[in-house]
Amino acid sequence: MTKSAVIALALIAAWFTSPPEGLTVQAWRLFVVFAGAIVFVVANALPILTASVLAVACSVLTGLLSPAKAYSGFANGTILLIVLAFLVARSVVKCGLGTRIGHILVSHFGKSTLGLSYSIFLVDGLIAPAFPSNTARSGVIFPLAFSLADAAGAKPGDESRRRLGSFLMFSGVVSLSLSSALWLTAMAANPLGTEIARGFGVEIGFGSWLLAASVPTIASMVLMPLLLYRVMAPELTSTPQAPAAARRALAALGPLRRDEKVVLVAFVGMVALWASAATLKLDSTAVAFLGLGGLLASNVLTLEDISHEGDVLATFIWFAVLFTFSGQLNELGFMGFLGQRLADAMGGFSAGAAGLTLVVAYVLLHYVFVSQTAHLLALFGVFLDVGVKLGVPAAPLAFHLLCATNYFSAITPQGSSANLLFAGSGYLSQRDLYRLGALTTACNMLIYVIIGTPWFRLVLK
Amino acid sequence: MTKSAVIALALIAAWFTSPPEGLTVQAWRLFVVFAGAIVFVVANALPILTASVLAVACSVLTGLLSPAKAYSGFANGTILLIVLAFLVARSVVKCGLGTRIGHILVSHFGKSTLGLSYSIFLVDGLIAPAFPSNTARSGVIFPLAFSLADAAGAKPGDESRRRLGSFLMFSGVVSLSLSSALWLTAMAANPLGTEIARGFGVEIGFGSWLLAASVPTIASMVLMPLLLYRVMAPELTSTPQAPAAARRALAALGPLRRDEKVVLVAFVGMVALWASAATLKLDSTAVAFLGLGGLLASNVLTLEDISHEGDVLATFIWFAVLFTFSGQLNELGFMGFLGQRLADAMGGFSAGAAGLTLVVAYVLLHYVFVSQTAHLLALFGVFLDVGVKLGVPAAPLAFHLLCATNYFSAITPQGSSANLLFAGSGYLSQRDLYRLGALTTACNMLIYVIIGTPWFRLVLK
Repeated sequence: MTKSAVIALALIAAWFTSPPEGLTVQAWRLFVVFAGAIVFVVANALPILTASVLAVACSVLTGLLSPAKAYSGFANGTILLIVLAFLVARSVVKCGLGTRIGHILVSHFGKSTLGLSYSIFLVDGLIAPAFPSNTARSGVIFPLAFSLADAAGAKPGDESRRRLGSFLMFSGVVSLSLSSALWLTAMAANPLGTEIARGFGVEIGFGSWLLAASVPTIASMVLMPLLLYRVMAPELTSTPQAPAAARRALAALGPLRRDEKVVLVAFVGMVALWASAATLKLDSTAVAFLGLGGLLASNVLTLEDISHEGDVLATFIWFAVLFTFSGQLNELGFMGFLGQRLADAMGGFSAGAAGLTLVVAYVLLHYVFVSQTAHLLALFGVFLDVGVKLGVPAAPLAFHLLCATNYFSAITPQGSSANLLFAGSGYLSQRDLYRLGALTTACNMLIYVIIGTPWFRLVLK
Repeated sequence: MTKSAVIALALIAAWFTSPPEGLTVQAWRLFVVFAGAIVFVVANALPILTASVLAVACSVLTGLLSPAKAYSGFANGTILLIVLAFLVARSVVKCGLGTRIGHILVSHFGKSTLGLSYSIFLVDGLIAPAFPSNTARSGVIFPLAFSLADAAGAKPGDESRRRLGSFLMFSGVVSLSLSSALWLTAMAANPLGTEIARGFGVEIGFGSWLLAASVPTIASMVLMPLLLYRVMAPELTSTPQAPAAARRALAALGPLRRDEKVVLVAFVGMVALWASAATLKLDSTAVAFLGLGGLLASNVLTLEDISHEGDVLATFIWFAVLFTFSGQLNELGFMGFLGQRLADAMGGFSAGAAGLTLVVAYVLLHYVFVSQTAHLLALFGVFLDVGVKLGVPAAPLAFHLLCATNYFSAITPQGSSANLLFAGSGYLSQRDLYRLGALTTACNMLIYVIIGTPWFRLVLK
């Protein structure tokens, strides 16, 4: 209560403060409301849904935003795409196709502890484009990692055995942070980021994202299991029985069931249409509507399944609200103002130094954010604007920040909701999580800066 | 499968049929898609969510509608208000306040099932003039009806008990359709209608509306519970012990708990703000956002509660889609085309026959409208004009159409956004909703024609 009261008082004071020169009262107060919502969330005083709902009520009732503007995010095609994709992803888990794919990969790559870790990265990387929610994907990857640890005899209570489990669990955390960076459609905030980047003249589609992300991300995916293997040193290194166990599990599953076939067709169809959306001038959201309609009409998804997806509604609401705020702040000139101020402060920097500083600062700031999306909405546009003003080429910088929005999710246990299942597994202490999170995030940042920078310059205009 | 195949083939044939003269291909095909979705639902071939999702995918992917237009319904304030009302209504049930109010009403009116239904009509009719949004009012009446059903022991799972719940739920639907007709200020489109009527020399104020509406509307309010009671035949009819049991339950509940007080304050606050929304220029949807935010911040509603509200998301999706279709059909001139055809066809009618035909046609056309306001805006002026040209007295005809704009809301589940909470309650099947909607709307039309016509002639100049 005291924490909330302090924040509320500070916000009320800020509301009545006259705005810095160059900002309208409207832009300033909208910033106060938006920043207030973020502060309540970061201080763990309010859930993000509550903060967002109160923020939109406040901004409309005080006349800061017209109702039409304030609610416009709900009709945004990108946000609807995320909502639909959440619903569609449920079908992969429900029909058992996700588990089957996991078993297939373990049967090929599961002979050693390191191979188990790589199989997690591989499964995750392959299914990621069909899962715009990395949190939803963690619902597939976590049971896989857990059953691998279990099959290999790892137990949370036994120190030497525990280390195998910890290794696989943290592999899951890092894998999710990288698979999300690889595909435009692998994380909810990615399409939002491309929308914002479009405002800076940077056009990123499904194919150009994959091309740009591929080299640094795949390099990280290859190096991270080795790094974790060396740092965490699991004593059990060989699991010769895992492939056979996976084959037995596959045999027990039998041939593809009818629902798995439907889901396979639906996903292959959607991914194909999404990939050719630009060429065929198809609306990606309409493709997702079609996919959802097909899954519902074939009874692979039922109304009963949808009725359990209240979380998706909550996400829809806070996403739409925060997205609108971010857009309106931009429209009212706030982002430009902030960017100008930051740019002024970094006046003497060369373009290279400025770009590097912006990326490092962007990543470090994730220590105070609980949501990747909130971080992106709050800072991505501003950082991009500052960089552009200081002469950093827009497209590579946008891509550095977009990739960072994914790989920095491992930095703290609460850095992404996709971490929560792994953090709660009993295999990893808070100390482990922070230590390994800092290490892997720093290494990923290095890899993206060193390998990504020349690659981005090469493939992005 | 065969049923769906037949419908699909008919729709494909209609799609490639050239449109009637005076209609664009776009308007015609959009009508085919919209009507197709409704036919699939009415034929019980697809759930309304599936049909709507496929319809919007089809209309965007074929280029009939731009994505921005097709998804605009998701940002519509009225639709968001419904979504929020769903979530907010949950708190009345969860905290036990609904049960308490239910017990209070049962202790006074609960000797019979019929008494419970009348208590809904009574409460609704009395609070209506303060609620210019019947949708907002449904957010108060629905939890009441739900709590009455709950207090009387109705359960969606148990067939004989379920019928009591269905009876009370549909009582709510019909009650809202009539309470809106009783007061000028009880529904958003009423004042709009009086504005249009003024153009035909018909002056209607708060008092003259009430005077004219009173006799037929109160007659309907008295008859409708009896009609529904006879048709729906709830097995539990007499509950002589209910009032005493309710009083015992009230005693056992003890004084108001903390959460009940919060909900009471939130609802009284929302009702007060909704009632004064027009005067204070407050946006009703923002008021609902504020209420939801307050309930979440005070932990009366939790994120866990919201996570079970996937049904609300389903309703949000299909309603936004159908609402948009209806609006677009109007915008593309389909509605106006229909009205003009009608006027042409009625060239030789006597004044009486013309008036009756216009009222019947106006009511039947509500099958294709999702919004009462859109229906009124599209057709009220046209129909009044046609009637006056054919010699029907303007004032009684205007009043027949204005009342119809309210009572026809029960005709389909999507006929008014005020129906959605009841339609989504789990007590009423799509079949029930269409069957009972047709029956009660037909009976109301009869009552207004038979009792209303002489009364309107008597009291209106």
